Amino acid sequence: MKDKPKKPQKLKARLPRGLEDRSPAAINATRQMVEKIRAVYELYGFEPVETPAFEYTDALGKFLPDQDRPNEGVFSFQDDDEQWISLRYDLTAPLARYVAENFDTLPKPYRSYRFGWVFRNEKPGPGRFRQFMQFDADTVGAPTPAADAEMCMMAADTMEALGIPRGSYVVKVNSRKVLDGVREALGIADDGQWLTVMRAIDKLDRLGIAGVKQLLGEGRKDESGDFTKGAGLTPTDIVLVTSVVEQVDDGEEKIAQMDLRLRDSKIAQQGREELEEIATLVRGSGYGEDRIKIDPSVVRGLEYYTGPVYEVELLLDTKDEKGRPVRFGSVGGGGRYDGLVSRFRGEPVPATGFSIGVSRLQAALTMLGQLDARPEAGPVVVTVFDRDRVADYQKFVGALRSAPLDPAKPDGPRIRAELYLGNPKNMGNQLKYADRRNSPCVIIQGSDEKARGEVQIKDLIEGAKAAAAIASNQEWRETRPAQFSCKEDEIVAKVREVLARHDVRWG
Amino acid sequence: MKDKPKKPQKLKARLPRGLEDRSPAAINATRQMVEKIRAVYELYGFEPVETPAFEYTDALGKFLPDQDRPNEGVFSFQDDDEQWISLRYDLTAPLARYVAENFDTLPKPYRSYRFGWVFRNEKPGPGRFRQFMQFDADTVGAPTPAADAEMCMMAADTMEALGIPRGSYVVKVNSRKVLDGVREALGIADDGQWLTVMRAIDKLDRLGIAGVKQLLGEGRKDESGDFTKGAGLTPTDIVLVTSVVEQVDDGEEKIAQMDLRLRDSKIAQQGREELEEIATLVRGSGYGEDRIKIDPSVVRGLEYYTGPVYEVELLLDTKDEKGRPVRFGSVGGGGRYDGLVSRFRGEPVPATGFSIGVSRLQAALTMLGQLDARPEAGPVVVTVFDRDRVADYQKFVGALRSAPLDPAKPDGPRIRAELYLGNPKNMGNQLKYADRRNSPCVIIQGSDEKARGEVQIKDLIEGAKAAAAIASNQEWRETRPAQFSCKEDEIVAKVREVLARHDVRWG
Repeated sequence: MKDKPKKPQKLKARLPRGLEDRSPAAINATRQMVEKIRAVYELYGFEPVETPAFEYTDALGKFLPDQDRPNEGVFSFQDDDEQWISLRYDLTAPLARYVAENFDTLPKPYRSYRFGWVFRNEKPGPGRFRQFMQFDADTVGAPTPAADAEMCMMAADTMEALGIPRGSYVVKVNSRKVLDGVREALGIADDGQWLTVMRAIDKLDRLGIAGVKQLLGEGRKDESGDFTKGAGLTPTDIVLVTSVVEQVDDGEEKIAQMDLRLRDSKIAQQGREELEEIATLVRGSGYGEDRIKIDPSVVRGLEYYTGPVYEVELLLDTKDEKGRPVRFGSVGGGGRYDGLVSRFRGEPVPATGFSIGVSRLQAALTMLGQLDARPEAGPVVVTVFDRDRVADYQKFVGALRSAPLDPAKPDGPRIRAELYLGNPKNMGNQLKYADRRNSPCVIIQGSDEKARGEVQIKDLIEGAKAAAAIASNQEWRETRPAQFSCKEDEIVAKVREVLARHDVRWG
Repeated sequence: MKDKPKKPQKLKARLPRGLEDRSPAAINATRQMVEKIRAVYELYGFEPVETPAFEYTDALGKFLPDQDRPNEGVFSFQDDDEQWISLRYDLTAPLARYVAENFDTLPKPYRSYRFGWVFRNEKPGPGRFRQFMQFDADTVGAPTPAADAEMCMMAADTMEALGIPRGSYVVKVNSRKVLDGVREALGIADDGQWLTVMRAIDKLDRLGIAGVKQLLGEGRKDESGDFTKGAGLTPTDIVLVTSVVEQVDDGEEKIAQMDLRLRDSKIAQQGREELEEIATLVRGSGYGEDRIKIDPSVVRGLEYYTGPVYEVELLLDTKDEKGRPVRFGSVGGGGRYDGLVSRFRGEPVPATGFSIGVSRLQAALTMLGQLDARPEAGPVVVTVFDRDRVADYQKFVGALRSAPLDPAKPDGPRIRAELYLGNPKNMGNQLKYADRRNSPCVIIQGSDEKARGEVQIKDLIEGAKAAAAIASNQEWRETRPAQFSCKEDEIVAKVREVLARHDVRWG
């Protein structure tokens, strides 16, 4: 056996780790979502702009959350002029570069939106991909909380436009300035220690107040026995932090409470006032706490935020593939990043923006049944009975494709149709193919039909129903359900009848 | 002066070479194009599928045209498990990987389409970008020329759906097998020499038959004096090549001529028969030579083609920015690549596909005036007269956004509106902003209007016309053209009147 000649080496077809191929249903769902989000953003006066997938690495900066090693998290390579280029890891850093580069020609405030793929060079995991889609909106040049309030209202409107009922989502708002005030009050100089505090606060939803307290103190052992080192705060300091971030029912009340705790911090006061102004504006426009809620536990991971931060959370519980309850959690968020454009301009440029995780939200909407995941009807398949007569069959296809689905709408969608292009020797295979394509009906013309100037039309949807009701092969052969003849020049009219009967609508 | 302190280093905002930022007009134009192409492909029974931006480098293969150095042309990096990954340089190689990986679950023949960005690590030039969009359709598992004929008809239909009139484009078809027959007849063993012959043929359009003859022989000196070394063929061999590829008026006639010249080449005979079958099928479906034309000079650059190749050419001449005549030339093409999926499968898998260069075609359509490049109307701008009353102004914005543009269509598009979010101290700046946003009208409410429960509406489109007709500043102040008052609760109705007067339609 050792001498058996090796097979010629065959290349293995495999998708790289952490990436996905996308099915027709997923692609259509994304298109539906994107169109709905776009409509809301344009209603708010935002205009589209797109930047390329690459930027100079220095222009992107290093703002990825939770990256302990430098240069981790992004895909980078050196250009032939030795400059480093990276694939964008979000849509905010490229926008900042775009605005800085075109500052003098843009209207200001500059409201814009864009969607596209972003790339993260991270360990992939379940539902965690290295390429995913974001949909962002940003307002540059608007310094007041009115711009942040607008983002929050737009986020709420977008969720409802996507079919998420009121009460099933909430936009939570906080201010980084309040957190900065906490840091000031605690006197934490070390960035690493402060990061640990913020990460602890960020886990409030998942771990509850007891878990957060552990992470603020010595540390926490999770169910698997893994130990996470804490921030090492004193018990008094822990009380300060938790009193600020702990959930209470009434958001507006909460702002006042912060005030007492952090009365000596100017920055916290500023944050408090901004949150009050946001609350006033959104309440004045009719957005209650069921839609937009002040929540001092919101942290947001990215380091570049400088003022209000907001997060959109889905409140629905669902079950994962193993039947365990899952809370969807965050599907988008954003905040004010007054320093990001300034890096290029050398002058202050206020900016605030909001990003939807399209891929993540799509998973949620699919589970909620808000996206049409049914496969679309396939085309009418014209089969090849006699391979010498392909040109004739092709003409049937052409006649169908030129015909509007609804004769009353000559400019409307036309009848989708195709010629069977596989090996025609076995009619059974052709019918199986049509079934797999989800075709509503097939056209068959053998020499007998040809002689009579007729074709056979087989209604596959009706046929599938009939097949389920028929007991024996013999009965099937005798009745030949859902199959009928018509004249060649009646094909379009008869196919239209079949399509109408099953309410087939394409596009 | 030497001691003047340096300014703090400021990051320079710059787009990397060979990439572009995209404007609202370009983005809208792409969306229009993509929707039209999609409609044609779905009419033909093609279904969408998408692969990610990356593939394992070995899966992509090395099929880029005109790359003399290995690994040139693609952006590649090493993953943390040491495997090489590349950004896709076209949409065909990733499709081949996808089909091979999912072979058993796909319907066969498998017709699919996709569009997206592709990346080339090449020297950028004018109109030559390192990221550009392609729109591809492929049929895998269909071995007969009927599949190639379908591609050509679909390409022709697509051009017309995009608004390119019949006669202004042509789909040119050839077969690699005919060229292989030429190679056989010439007895060329050396791949490099053969590549030089193919490149010479490919230049027929640009250089004419005399230029091609030079490139097939010793070589050619161009107008600038640069010398290109030729393929070194003998005069007799040059006659054979040019007799096959030279343009004649009648494509079908041309096929017969090949037959005489290459009667001993089995592969050329096969190519000839395939071209005849394609001609029969497309003519039978009513596609004349004005739409689909057999043209033995079509080469197509990519090395993986194995049978019929086709190219879509725009026949329109236009002028470049310097007023010189420019022929658009090729905007798409494709061919049969029976070997590409087989690399993974170890069994023959026939495939044929067609790719549109969306970015390139978009440039052509824009020049032809076939894409709506007018800027869309901006939103209604609610100005801030009194900064303490932002919440009130925000309510006007909300009222407009909730109102359908056409009251008879409550589910139709609504009125786009926004609050001015810049510094409100100067009303002139707010009006300039509204002008730059292309707003149809602005809403103004000072304290006098507030006291009367009224607002001012300024019709900016009418105002611009009136301004052009007015002679003096005094006349302007006295007449205040295109500005009027209305009650607060009439805002929506009055704005609708302004929008209707100027035929503003959004979306």
